[in-house]
Amino acid sequence: MDSVLRQSKAMCPFMRKATAAGLRAMTTAATATATAVRPAVAPSPCGGAISKLQVLARRCPVMGKAIAVQSARLGSNHHQHAGFHGAAASTFAGHRERSGKARLHTSRSKDARAVEDSLLDKGALPCWLPTSSCRHDMFFPRPSTHGSKFDYEGFYEAELGKKHKDKSYRYFNNINRLAREFPRAHMANREDRVDVWCANDYLGMGRNPQVLRAMHDTLDEYGAGAGGTRNISGHNRHAVELEHAIARLHAKEAGLVFSSCYVANDATLATLGSKMPDCVILSDSLNHASMIQGIRHSGARKIIFKHNDVHDLEQKLASLPLQVPKIIAFESVYSMCGSIGPIAEICDLAEKYGALTFLDEVHAVGMYGPHGAGVAEHLDFEAHARGAPRGTIMDRIDIITATLGKAYGCVGGYIAGTAKLIDTVRSLAPGFIFTTTLPPAVMAGARTAIEYQMDYGGDRRLQQLHTRAVKEALGERDIPVIPNPSHIIPVLVGNAELAKKASDKLLKDHDIYVQSINYPTVPVGQERLRITPTPGHTKPYRDHLVAAIESIWKELGIKRTSEWAAEGGFIGVGEANAVAEAPLWTNEQLGVTEATRAILAASPGGSSRGLTERLLELELEGSSASAPAAAAGAA
Amino acid sequence: MDSVLRQSKAMCPFMRKATAAGLRAMTTAATATATAVRPAVAPSPCGGAISKLQVLARRCPVMGKAIAVQSARLGSNHHQHAGFHGAAASTFAGHRERSGKARLHTSRSKDARAVEDSLLDKGALPCWLPTSSCRHDMFFPRPSTHGSKFDYEGFYEAELGKKHKDKSYRYFNNINRLAREFPRAHMANREDRVDVWCANDYLGMGRNPQVLRAMHDTLDEYGAGAGGTRNISGHNRHAVELEHAIARLHAKEAGLVFSSCYVANDATLATLGSKMPDCVILSDSLNHASMIQGIRHSGARKIIFKHNDVHDLEQKLASLPLQVPKIIAFESVYSMCGSIGPIAEICDLAEKYGALTFLDEVHAVGMYGPHGAGVAEHLDFEAHARGAPRGTIMDRIDIITATLGKAYGCVGGYIAGTAKLIDTVRSLAPGFIFTTTLPPAVMAGARTAIEYQMDYGGDRRLQQLHTRAVKEALGERDIPVIPNPSHIIPVLVGNAELAKKASDKLLKDHDIYVQSINYPTVPVGQERLRITPTPGHTKPYRDHLVAAIESIWKELGIKRTSEWAAEGGFIGVGEANAVAEAPLWTNEQLGVTEATRAILAASPGGSSRGLTERLLELELEGSSASAPAAAAGAA
Repeated sequence: MDSVLRQSKAMCPFMRKATAAGLRAMTTAATATATAVRPAVAPSPCGGAISKLQVLARRCPVMGKAIAVQSARLGSNHHQHAGFHGAAASTFAGHRERSGKARLHTSRSKDARAVEDSLLDKGALPCWLPTSSCRHDMFFPRPSTHGSKFDYEGFYEAELGKKHKDKSYRYFNNINRLAREFPRAHMANREDRVDVWCANDYLGMGRNPQVLRAMHDTLDEYGAGAGGTRNISGHNRHAVELEHAIARLHAKEAGLVFSSCYVANDATLATLGSKMPDCVILSDSLNHASMIQGIRHSGARKIIFKHNDVHDLEQKLASLPLQVPKIIAFESVYSMCGSIGPIAEICDLAEKYGALTFLDEVHAVGMYGPHGAGVAEHLDFEAHARGAPRGTIMDRIDIITATLGKAYGCVGGYIAGTAKLIDTVRSLAPGFIFTTTLPPAVMAGARTAIEYQMDYGGDRRLQQLHTRAVKEALGERDIPVIPNPSHIIPVLVGNAELAKKASDKLLKDHDIYVQSINYPTVPVGQERLRITPTPGHTKPYRDHLVAAIESIWKELGIKRTSEWAAEGGFIGVGEANAVAEAPLWTNEQLGVTEATRAILAASPGGSSRGLTERLLELELEGSSASAPAAAAGAA
Repeated sequence: MDSVLRQSKAMCPFMRKATAAGLRAMTTAATATATAVRPAVAPSPCGGAISKLQVLARRCPVMGKAIAVQSARLGSNHHQHAGFHGAAASTFAGHRERSGKARLHTSRSKDARAVEDSLLDKGALPCWLPTSSCRHDMFFPRPSTHGSKFDYEGFYEAELGKKHKDKSYRYFNNINRLAREFPRAHMANREDRVDVWCANDYLGMGRNPQVLRAMHDTLDEYGAGAGGTRNISGHNRHAVELEHAIARLHAKEAGLVFSSCYVANDATLATLGSKMPDCVILSDSLNHASMIQGIRHSGARKIIFKHNDVHDLEQKLASLPLQVPKIIAFESVYSMCGSIGPIAEICDLAEKYGALTFLDEVHAVGMYGPHGAGVAEHLDFEAHARGAPRGTIMDRIDIITATLGKAYGCVGGYIAGTAKLIDTVRSLAPGFIFTTTLPPAVMAGARTAIEYQMDYGGDRRLQQLHTRAVKEALGERDIPVIPNPSHIIPVLVGNAELAKKASDKLLKDHDIYVQSINYPTVPVGQERLRITPTPGHTKPYRDHLVAAIESIWKELGIKRTSEWAAEGGFIGVGEANAVAEAPLWTNEQLGVTEATRAILAASPGGSSRGLTERLLELELEGSSASAPAAAAGAA
């Protein structure tokens, strides 16, 4: 260590003045007084007492900055521990969040690392020399003896132990969704049937005969795999046609397909964020893991704005110089709570402050809009229905990303935007370049699904009606549904063990599969069952589900909406002054305005009880007059 | 800026002494003398002149370290500009490498970023204050007027312009590989047929009837997509069975499937590297992009060792304390040059120094070993053939990663290892957790392909014989093949424009598709055609290919082996003292020992000219006696 010390002393005015003994003494824990000098500074992010040297280092204009940045990143950063898909808790997220526990990110800054290892973790003298002259023993404590090797199996065991301990260890359920019995599946045992109520094959396109036909034909003609990357023998008509369909769907110049939307988000944000000079990425606090990773991997400055809070976003945008490149990254439908992003307002802000808009429509494509292009399309329903996309909100979005694996029933992800944007990402993103193309059959199936849903609106209309019916039925039974305007039905449990128990009981006692959503996917205290109806969830399925939930709520004594209300409400449930957002799909868009009026007029006291079930019954009874009009995309 | 200055002065002994005017003066460019003080320091990584303040900052024990680390990372780092798949140039890589040009990474350190933006890029006073008190205008130069918005389209155009200028812009060929006409494909026009000689469907499993049958059946029964993540309704028998097959294949406790091997490598290295305290990752200089990204994303310390150089690796391992966790990340077959990693030696070193071995068998699974488990299996051929994997080299590898998209003909990637390792990655890696499961049909097809190749060795045997035949034929015609012991045939061109021309001419004039491999996939000067034979490339295909290459070499005047030799040789081609590595598949393993002896004995002067073609003829003529024995996996 002496040579380090010597060299440091030669370079730093502070080190020059200090004696070796004095420095050594400073590596012991600081007194309470010493730390109190800067109370605003958080404790060592790596745990343990702070040494006097660390306290001094924090006062150094250079070192202090490095430590502060590192502390902020490792410490209770909203985004890092709760801001992934799973954690998309609700419009009210932020309540009850646990901090500094589970961090999504798996990356650490190398630079900060060196500082952290040497200065913060070790309590040893920091290695303050340029890399070239830096020996490994400066970074690592020299063992007094040769020591023993690292215990890798012990490490795995400890990591798994932590997951078991905080109840975040995941047990996978073996669910085999049956194409011919949609929405049913068999379990590990082929004879055990369950109703699936939590898949993301929202429209049942995974068993759509046209999709399957396209896949069978493509398999026969072009085989199983693409055989290469896009650049080396893996570019083909399926990729070209799929990307054309994507561009048409979103009325953009071009599209680009990736292995998944996780990869699409990660690769696109990482590429743009790292390539655009001084780029700043503004990210909704409940953004999905893939976006958070992409932002982290970009190395760009990240500014997190409060979930769906355009006022907060504007403040942050206004603080940045106009000419600095910025990306506002957000979602249309937030998966775990079903909240919907303020797309139009964000477009206004982006325009005002010169930012790119990056909109994740993963849970919305196929589901909203006259052609199923997502929420952005839905917001100008009429214009898009008549084929006039220019100037619409969707037109103003710079980058739309989405998946082929949810409402489109296949797998893969994509981005859509201007030709130059797409060409840039195509040319620069390693996650696109260095990976095998999706199988021809998958691309053919996905294209068929997109085009089918562009032409036919009946599936998403029925999905919305089924969603309404379930929400109504649960609401009428005092079962707490976290309110939202989308197709997601988050049923609040509010306790990890109970949520798991409820899910297990649904499966075991009622043959219903609804995965419980626990921490870290949602914050502690916001545990829920996330229910996703499909057009295949007809009345017998719905009745069975609602009765099963009712019975489990009773059996396990899970809190009802009225009980949450008695406590003042929580994340929208039972909140007295909460104004319910109207569903994104209006009665008019669903073609049920007239029928609704008629039912309400005929019902005693104009009660809306069972309204949607009644609407669905009427349709079944043959009043199909409104159905063709409702298949809005047909225009 | 004054308040920044005031606060900085209050904290830093250097800043305290400096006057405001003095500091301002220092932000101008340094004199030659000033920079000469530390000649070892590279110029500003972001370009532009270095200010005096930067020179001084570099002398600061804290700031200097941060700048040095950042410079090293942004500067001419071997790994960063050449170390991706593409750049896997040859066993002699390192020659003629261009530095500081194309960087693979898309990530930058946030911490270093702040420093870089303020201190290096701007020439403005650095922001040396903790984040909390840091305003944005400290990071960005305030425009004198409001300025204009960032020109995003202009930025894309400039990026694309760079690619066009350095000839690295990629034009994709539309190649539709036909299952029933393997190895042929049609181009954009359905009538235009070409022979595909560069796909990674090495064994033609993409059109294997059993694979296709499994996929058709699964499509019918379980539909197109999985419908969810592994945790939420996307875990099924196909995933379970595929992961069992993977574990059996590699004789490991468990396997885990990802969207691709790019994701598998990235997610696994990022997770382990970030979670294991003080982890160091030692990485072969020619490792694939996915590993480089994973290492970067882990934030762990990275040490690059020379390609396949166990001496260099040992030196680096020896410099690290024994108890520090380490991962040695390397490949078995390096894709672009066909070199093979010293797996046994690396296992020895890993054991000696307490490191994990992380072996990428992407280009080797299905292709080597009695069961197609890869090169690690091949090295103990007999032991594995008789089902005794314990104590073998494959047994000693801790983490095997591979793809389902090359020799197995489908798509997807995986890792295999101990149950606890797999469970840890399963539980912690966002790239695994937050993404849709592969389609059931894809998983069923991949499992079928693995099991088929475990039982039958005929495809990989024929692939090796076809490879030998093409290598021999090209060699006999003085066409420069970069020597290697594997199934890859890299034909050296050594010029970007010529390589592209050769590829275009093959396609246009000869209906043969071989993508040219140019910078940045390989270093400038090492441009090549990468040829990959399959069992489907029978004699007419081979003869056509060799004649076409011969004619193009003549027409374009591309250098022959003898010409490279006259220049002293280059990356193994025409090097007088180069000892050719024997093919990994021996005559005995191929079952051609006897036949080879007979042919050589009968040939005039014992010439080996056309040896492999003669062997293949003999087999066709019905001397199928050796074939069953050669189907080594059948045991």
